[in-house]
Amino acid sequence: MTERTELSTLGEFGLIDRLTNTIKCTQTSTIKGIGDDAAVIKYDHKVTLVSTDLLTEGIHFDLSYIPLKHLGYKAAVVNFSDIYAMNGVPRQLLISIAISNRFSLEAIEELYEGLRLACKKYDVDLVGGDTSSSASGTFMSLTVIGEAEEEKVVYRNTAQVGDLICVSGDLGAAFTGLLLLEREKEVFLANPNAQPDIENNDYVLQRQLRPEARKDIIAKLEELQIKPTSMIDVSDGLASELMHICHDSEKGCNIYENKIPIDFTTVKTAEEFNMEPLICALNGGEDYELLFTVDLKDYDKIVQFSEISIIGHITAASEGLNLITNAEQSIELTAQGWDAFKKGQ
Amino acid sequence: MTERTELSTLGEFGLIDRLTNTIKCTQTSTIKGIGDDAAVIKYDHKVTLVSTDLLTEGIHFDLSYIPLKHLGYKAAVVNFSDIYAMNGVPRQLLISIAISNRFSLEAIEELYEGLRLACKKYDVDLVGGDTSSSASGTFMSLTVIGEAEEEKVVYRNTAQVGDLICVSGDLGAAFTGLLLLEREKEVFLANPNAQPDIENNDYVLQRQLRPEARKDIIAKLEELQIKPTSMIDVSDGLASELMHICHDSEKGCNIYENKIPIDFTTVKTAEEFNMEPLICALNGGEDYELLFTVDLKDYDKIVQFSEISIIGHITAASEGLNLITNAEQSIELTAQGWDAFKKGQ
Repeated sequence: MTERTELSTLGEFGLIDRLTNTIKCTQTSTIKGIGDDAAVIKYDHKVTLVSTDLLTEGIHFDLSYIPLKHLGYKAAVVNFSDIYAMNGVPRQLLISIAISNRFSLEAIEELYEGLRLACKKYDVDLVGGDTSSSASGTFMSLTVIGEAEEEKVVYRNTAQVGDLICVSGDLGAAFTGLLLLEREKEVFLANPNAQPDIENNDYVLQRQLRPEARKDIIAKLEELQIKPTSMIDVSDGLASELMHICHDSEKGCNIYENKIPIDFTTVKTAEEFNMEPLICALNGGEDYELLFTVDLKDYDKIVQFSEISIIGHITAASEGLNLITNAEQSIELTAQGWDAFKKGQ
Repeated sequence: MTERTELSTLGEFGLIDRLTNTIKCTQTSTIKGIGDDAAVIKYDHKVTLVSTDLLTEGIHFDLSYIPLKHLGYKAAVVNFSDIYAMNGVPRQLLISIAISNRFSLEAIEELYEGLRLACKKYDVDLVGGDTSSSASGTFMSLTVIGEAEEEKVVYRNTAQVGDLICVSGDLGAAFTGLLLLEREKEVFLANPNAQPDIENNDYVLQRQLRPEARKDIIAKLEELQIKPTSMIDVSDGLASELMHICHDSEKGCNIYENKIPIDFTTVKTAEEFNMEPLICALNGGEDYELLFTVDLKDYDKIVQFSEISIIGHITAASEGLNLITNAEQSIELTAQGWDAFKKGQ
């Protein structure tokens, strides 16, 4: 970023043109992408899945330590994750950005580069959006459109008593990555041109700054012919997402402390900050793993799938939501998930 | 608004629940609305149209004079207009809002009430969204999803030489309404509880504060069996939209000063501010009328349609974009449309 082009020299149309003129659509379902009043999309005999997500500076991201390219990448991936959590495939993305005038064109191109990288990796077309200046902070709103066969869509409210509760990957790493970044923030504040180099950095920073959506898990479930009975992605922490599934399905659950997957670097980092790794996994958020339930009959298939942990089972609503500790105590689960309104003040 | 509930007492989930618990979906295409990772939508044998729009405080709206209910209504209508401009029908809406903590729950409920009114009037389901606090101003991003038969979709880039250029309603009123509001702003600033009463106020204020999308024009074109050869909605001013159509279609145009529809209250208000009514119509923006081109063969049908003015015709690109004045002078059209990046500073 040696050039610096002021946004005010471009105007809105000039900016949109600069940001979008290299964007190509490759999905057969994208009939018309950027450049008209609306994008035109066609899926025959399938349903359309749509999800939108808002990211605001100072609340969802802190530009003093997340590089703009990673911010773009993460914003896109987080939205794709919502479509996978419905057992669908993301196909198109729309992005609206209100940008603080303190940014140059080149800075926003970095952000778009991150969006483009994510779209390329996940095979998604960028088909529209809106761009505006902002008198204050930077805001992004993303809308992702996906497709699925109607009978394969998995909702949150359809878990059944006796179903196994499964989660992909491991939990808590993104939160401990955030703890590290918050500690290092002073360094970035002292030198505003410094941005964390995460390429050679460790796992927890990667998980915070460049998360991936579990496209692979959806593909593997399809291959194993398992249709989850309910599913959600872990954006606000395991406890909060379990509460969504149980509340919406009118069920309870038991999960087991010793089954919750936590990476050893997460344990190490949590301990550095005198935090319980389990608390990071339960309430940390931003892991973007898939939390789902499957019928008991799928046990044999799911158990051989190394990327999946079976962490408990669904019970009747009257039994409540419980964590069974290693000491065999039963503790009621409470959501202390990420709360934008309290955090943002 | 006598109650005042602080947002911080609700939390994000509490707020979303309060805002959305009365929202009902009625479209047969809405399989699942708010309450999962994504909305689920199904159109058989039709295309999906998607458009997104970003509104930022201090740039797109000024809360010192637009009542929140009207802001919600306008934000929704502006998005519906994009779908009509494709010759489609809006069916679902998603809304993301970042809200300044200076607002109470009741204030945001006013905004949602406006969204709901618009959805009801235009028969659209509110199916999703995201809500966050904002450390600074208020931001809204709306995404609207519509449907159309594939062969009926009308693009911007398909105008042909000889086509008639048509516009619905009248132009420039919304801009002169804005001039009035800017002048009256001092009154609202002096008394922050005052908000303009537009119910009994005149036409230009209505056009600025509570615009409507031209659903009726799309229905009438269908009834008359006219498919426009190109179409766009007038959000940035007639000149700017004509440039989009001509640029994208690689054509030129001649439009005639004496054919441009301007309401007499617009003329009166413009003159109060020592402005040319014609300039307000050409460059004012926010009229949300439909600008479209039709084949000459449709002349007999379109001419009897009182809500439509034929203002000129499409020419070869080499002839440029011209306004023929009442004095029979030809002036090149330039876009001085609304430019968020320059205006926002």
